[in-house]
Amino acid sequence: MGDGQTWAEILSIGTELLMGEIVDTNAAWLASRLPPLGITLRWVTQVGDDLGDLTYALRQALGRSQVIITTGGLGPTADDLTREAVAQVLGETLTVDDALLAHLQAYFQRRGVPMAQANIKQAMRIPSALPLPNPRGTAPGWWVEQDGHIIVCMPGVPHEMEHMWNNEVAPRLQQKVRGTVILTRTIKTFGMPEGSVGELVQEFFGKENPYLGIYAKPDGIHLRLIARAPSRAEALSLLQPVEDAIRQRLAPIIWGVDDETPEKQVGALLKENRWSLAVMESCTGGLLASTITDVAGSSTYFRGGAVTYTAEAKIAHGVDGRLIETYGVVSPQVAEDMARAVREGFQADFGIGITGVAGPDPLEGKPPGTVFIGIAWEGGTRSVAGRYPPDRNLVKRRAVMHALLELHRTLAQRVRG
Amino acid sequence: MGDGQTWAEILSIGTELLMGEIVDTNAAWLASRLPPLGITLRWVTQVGDDLGDLTYALRQALGRSQVIITTGGLGPTADDLTREAVAQVLGETLTVDDALLAHLQAYFQRRGVPMAQANIKQAMRIPSALPLPNPRGTAPGWWVEQDGHIIVCMPGVPHEMEHMWNNEVAPRLQQKVRGTVILTRTIKTFGMPEGSVGELVQEFFGKENPYLGIYAKPDGIHLRLIARAPSRAEALSLLQPVEDAIRQRLAPIIWGVDDETPEKQVGALLKENRWSLAVMESCTGGLLASTITDVAGSSTYFRGGAVTYTAEAKIAHGVDGRLIETYGVVSPQVAEDMARAVREGFQADFGIGITGVAGPDPLEGKPPGTVFIGIAWEGGTRSVAGRYPPDRNLVKRRAVMHALLELHRTLAQRVRG
Repeated sequence: MGDGQTWAEILSIGTELLMGEIVDTNAAWLASRLPPLGITLRWVTQVGDDLGDLTYALRQALGRSQVIITTGGLGPTADDLTREAVAQVLGETLTVDDALLAHLQAYFQRRGVPMAQANIKQAMRIPSALPLPNPRGTAPGWWVEQDGHIIVCMPGVPHEMEHMWNNEVAPRLQQKVRGTVILTRTIKTFGMPEGSVGELVQEFFGKENPYLGIYAKPDGIHLRLIARAPSRAEALSLLQPVEDAIRQRLAPIIWGVDDETPEKQVGALLKENRWSLAVMESCTGGLLASTITDVAGSSTYFRGGAVTYTAEAKIAHGVDGRLIETYGVVSPQVAEDMARAVREGFQADFGIGITGVAGPDPLEGKPPGTVFIGIAWEGGTRSVAGRYPPDRNLVKRRAVMHALLELHRTLAQRVRG
Repeated sequence: MGDGQTWAEILSIGTELLMGEIVDTNAAWLASRLPPLGITLRWVTQVGDDLGDLTYALRQALGRSQVIITTGGLGPTADDLTREAVAQVLGETLTVDDALLAHLQAYFQRRGVPMAQANIKQAMRIPSALPLPNPRGTAPGWWVEQDGHIIVCMPGVPHEMEHMWNNEVAPRLQQKVRGTVILTRTIKTFGMPEGSVGELVQEFFGKENPYLGIYAKPDGIHLRLIARAPSRAEALSLLQPVEDAIRQRLAPIIWGVDDETPEKQVGALLKENRWSLAVMESCTGGLLASTITDVAGSSTYFRGGAVTYTAEAKIAHGVDGRLIETYGVVSPQVAEDMARAVREGFQADFGIGITGVAGPDPLEGKPPGTVFIGIAWEGGTRSVAGRYPPDRNLVKRRAVMHALLELHRTLAQRVRG
């Protein structure tokens, strides 16, 4: 691939996509990984399990894109036609690859299940296709180079595809593609309104390169820098000084960058300082604990949680019943006491308590979306109120993000002393 | 639109899609709503905010599809080019529609915010475009009919698009399209391997109409029936008898149909029988409780849960420490005792206990993906083992589905007595 723009196209293959049975998350996942490689995604096409439509889409893609990435259609059934379509479009013949077949048979042997005749199909390839190993499934991928085009075929199962992309495809593309490198850096803040954040970095807006955008997200205000240059080094030299200046101005409210999440950042701070955490949740119903434990290694700092959906359960877990009587179960006082009680109950350094109204019905006359978050530590508690859109699942997700970011703030303050 | 096949195509418009910043959920949402209207979706294309690419995609769509549905690109900014592209492709001129403009100004007035100059663009239309009201936003949609083609333009914001589809677009398409109506029915089973399920309904495979497909999913084996006919009534008369026959053969293992979920079905059974539930989870870290409480009204049967990430926490919640010593924390004995302990602790009718290895590291020499699920009721407990792919989040999701389906089985048996 020469200099300048490298156009890419994604073909998401499968009739289940066109029937609306599954959402094409693969395309978005891949799309976000192309710009850093200097590849510009121009088209995404969803096409069904139809040989005619598949070959049509592939021919069109060859006519307008240098890099063509397909997902899906590599299974063992008669519907899986990606291999056949690529062979037909390139005028090559499919034959069984003995090495692939042996590998496939070994895969089934390891699992102690007999290999069906149908699976032999997955061991087939065309001469110009380099097989890409798929340790997470039975469908090997293909890497095909022809006339300045690269065709990559990957399975549709997300965790198989992602593993293959990271280990086989991305490194090869890095070698091949010499396009305009696009570097992005997202700086994530919390605790200041969008307008005020914008004012603090006003002077960096309206520039072409690096371009600065500002976005309001459930986990705070994000600033995204985009730099374009012929090489990674040049792009970085454009991006770095602006990033440093922004970091300096927003230091106290920055909690993370890029794909860092509140749960990862909270986990890192807890781990570094050998602190432990326990949570008691009502309206979030376990989503807070589940989000915390999505992070690998969370068992080193997460002691556990209680989902106390009833007042009795809260009292049984150490919450002062008089506070519930006096202030109601949806109150800052009860949120703080839940944090205190669970912290003591699990003998943790920090505790979080969440109480609120997930909806659809109001509670104690408070509308859905009303949430109180309590945080407890050695010798202190505090609470914040949240008001979110009155959608049950939105309330749960927003409240969890909010609680984690408030905890991060408390932890960061402790670290700074 | 005459008889026979009516082909549709979706254009999802927006560079943020191609940058991987958002997932195109609109396409899947729309896709699932076309078959009942007798419309077959053949292509979905994601295209950026580029006038050239947009007109290219529209011309191509006009060449191969009778119904073209676009989402996105109707905003007030310079990037929003859907109106311009349609005008160009149809060779018509955009002019301000006074009624639309008045409506737009009223919209801003109601919200007490000044209307920006840029928004005037949203009041423009071409002569052949019928404006579609958008009570949820500022961007009206377009309904365009020309030379046997229908072009529908809708906003990209999901809750605006969905409202416009339900109230403006779907009814009009119902009028216009006389295509083949496609009815589908998905029957969801659990507790029998795919091969055995297949054998029981063998005779219904290999027919064209209704077509029967079988699929292995995280929540069990799904059977999908697809019937095609000129009218909804005729399609139903094809589908119903086969569905009834399948239901009869698989009755004991069917847990739901279509978009029913294990958490909804478990909730329904608990509610009907006035039973209550409590859960103690280790490796799923709160996801089980969170999934249960995703269901509106779950507070009527869900007493609460404990996330006991450590052995100490399990013991503190009533689990017998000797069982942990003897069998290890990841064992059927501990899973059953967790179920028993949490059932008693929350005074619930049923209890679930989950213990296992989410990974990435092994535990007690057991590999990631090893999970034991315990279920407890008045006077009894049982447990099942699960082995899932060793991916942390996959293990959590699979174990939760498995636990809910095992509980559903237990509840269904109790109901049958």
